[in-house]
Amino acid sequence: MQRRQFIKGASLMMAASIIAPTLQAKTSSPLSAAKTPFTTGKYRVLALVFDDYETLDLHGPIEMLGHMPNTEIKLVAAKEIVSSYQGPRVLADCLTEQTYDCDLLLIPGGLGTRTLVNDTELRQWLIAQIARSQNVFTICTGTALLAMTSVLNDRKATTNKMAYEWVTSLNDNPQWQPKARWVFDGKFLTSSGVSAGTDAALFWIKQLHGDQEAKRIQILTEYDWNDNPHNDPYAVG
Amino acid sequence: MQRRQFIKGASLMMAASIIAPTLQAKTSSPLSAAKTPFTTGKYRVLALVFDDYETLDLHGPIEMLGHMPNTEIKLVAAKEIVSSYQGPRVLADCLTEQTYDCDLLLIPGGLGTRTLVNDTELRQWLIAQIARSQNVFTICTGTALLAMTSVLNDRKATTNKMAYEWVTSLNDNPQWQPKARWVFDGKFLTSSGVSAGTDAALFWIKQLHGDQEAKRIQILTEYDWNDNPHNDPYAVG
Repeated sequence: MQRRQFIKGASLMMAASIIAPTLQAKTSSPLSAAKTPFTTGKYRVLALVFDDYETLDLHGPIEMLGHMPNTEIKLVAAKEIVSSYQGPRVLADCLTEQTYDCDLLLIPGGLGTRTLVNDTELRQWLIAQIARSQNVFTICTGTALLAMTSVLNDRKATTNKMAYEWVTSLNDNPQWQPKARWVFDGKFLTSSGVSAGTDAALFWIKQLHGDQEAKRIQILTEYDWNDNPHNDPYAVG
Repeated sequence: MQRRQFIKGASLMMAASIIAPTLQAKTSSPLSAAKTPFTTGKYRVLALVFDDYETLDLHGPIEMLGHMPNTEIKLVAAKEIVSSYQGPRVLADCLTEQTYDCDLLLIPGGLGTRTLVNDTELRQWLIAQIARSQNVFTICTGTALLAMTSVLNDRKATTNKMAYEWVTSLNDNPQWQPKARWVFDGKFLTSSGVSAGTDAALFWIKQLHGDQEAKRIQILTEYDWNDNPHNDPYAVG
């Protein structure tokens, strides 16, 4: 680990320890009684949901990651019932009143991010939650929520190409990639718009379990996988 | 309309009128108080959910259909909270205690269908619900639930190619298509496994609103659309 990365990591941990007790103190729902929503020994995927999240941003990756061996996927939100942009509602497994140890923090995009980028409380939770997450995977304008923190600074990152101007205007410091289906840098996997998240999820399975396992899941789901991160049909410019 | 189709339609309507009152009599949940979950004047998509439904079977089509103008998508289930095969839970908007007028009935597949094909009550509800649905769209092994009724008899239909032998063994009468990403025959759109549902959903948008609207949604979601129903990379045999 480079010194610079170490210092970044340390300051995140400090931020987490400062913010976490405040967050934990606001216990009000029965959901928050659980210290962790996960079973011991599983690969823990924690997915953030919020009103007007984009359906496929979330459920494309969940489809693929959910076929990995020994994996558990839980939803975290500021409230128990959350509506997608397309209408159907999901139920949170735990609340953003506290943070959770997890292996992969998944952050979808969607219209909801347009207001959430101004949500100071969520930003603080994210900083603390990222520190407790082994890796972070954003889809589409989910990257905008990371752009409101400093975690992507000096890192390569990408986002939805239809909302590229907006997301990149939020923070000049990441090395924004105008042509990339997805980018993996440091602990952060960021992907392009909506469907790109499903391609990036299969890449992530390949990272964790190898090509054969990714192919097994691709075939199982009869998916046409764009497995080349440089093949971005929606590249900007 | 041919005489044979008319008779089929009439017998379905009769089946619906016989079964519907029985189903409506079993009112117990507050959800069932609503006669319809839909707003007047919308294109009404009703999606059946059940435990161990396959995530992308449902949410891929919902993603695409949800971007159509003036469209409302509601979930219907035998209970209020339903868990996907991948874990995350959705909330039903209405219950299978009654049937509902709708424009498109969506039926995903998944491991849950393996036991549901033996569920007589669901089968009766489906027969009645299909009669009140302008069109029916099945994804993956969702087709198995239709195969347990006679509605696909003599019609071209397809299903998941990984579960092709099982689904087709349930009913000899449909004209099963071993090579098809999706098939549209009569009022029934049936698609191949998991991801094929997303391709078929864009086809459906093209049917309703034309190629330009389908392309608009394809671009919006940065999707790599396989728009040729004969291009089936997972064809059987």
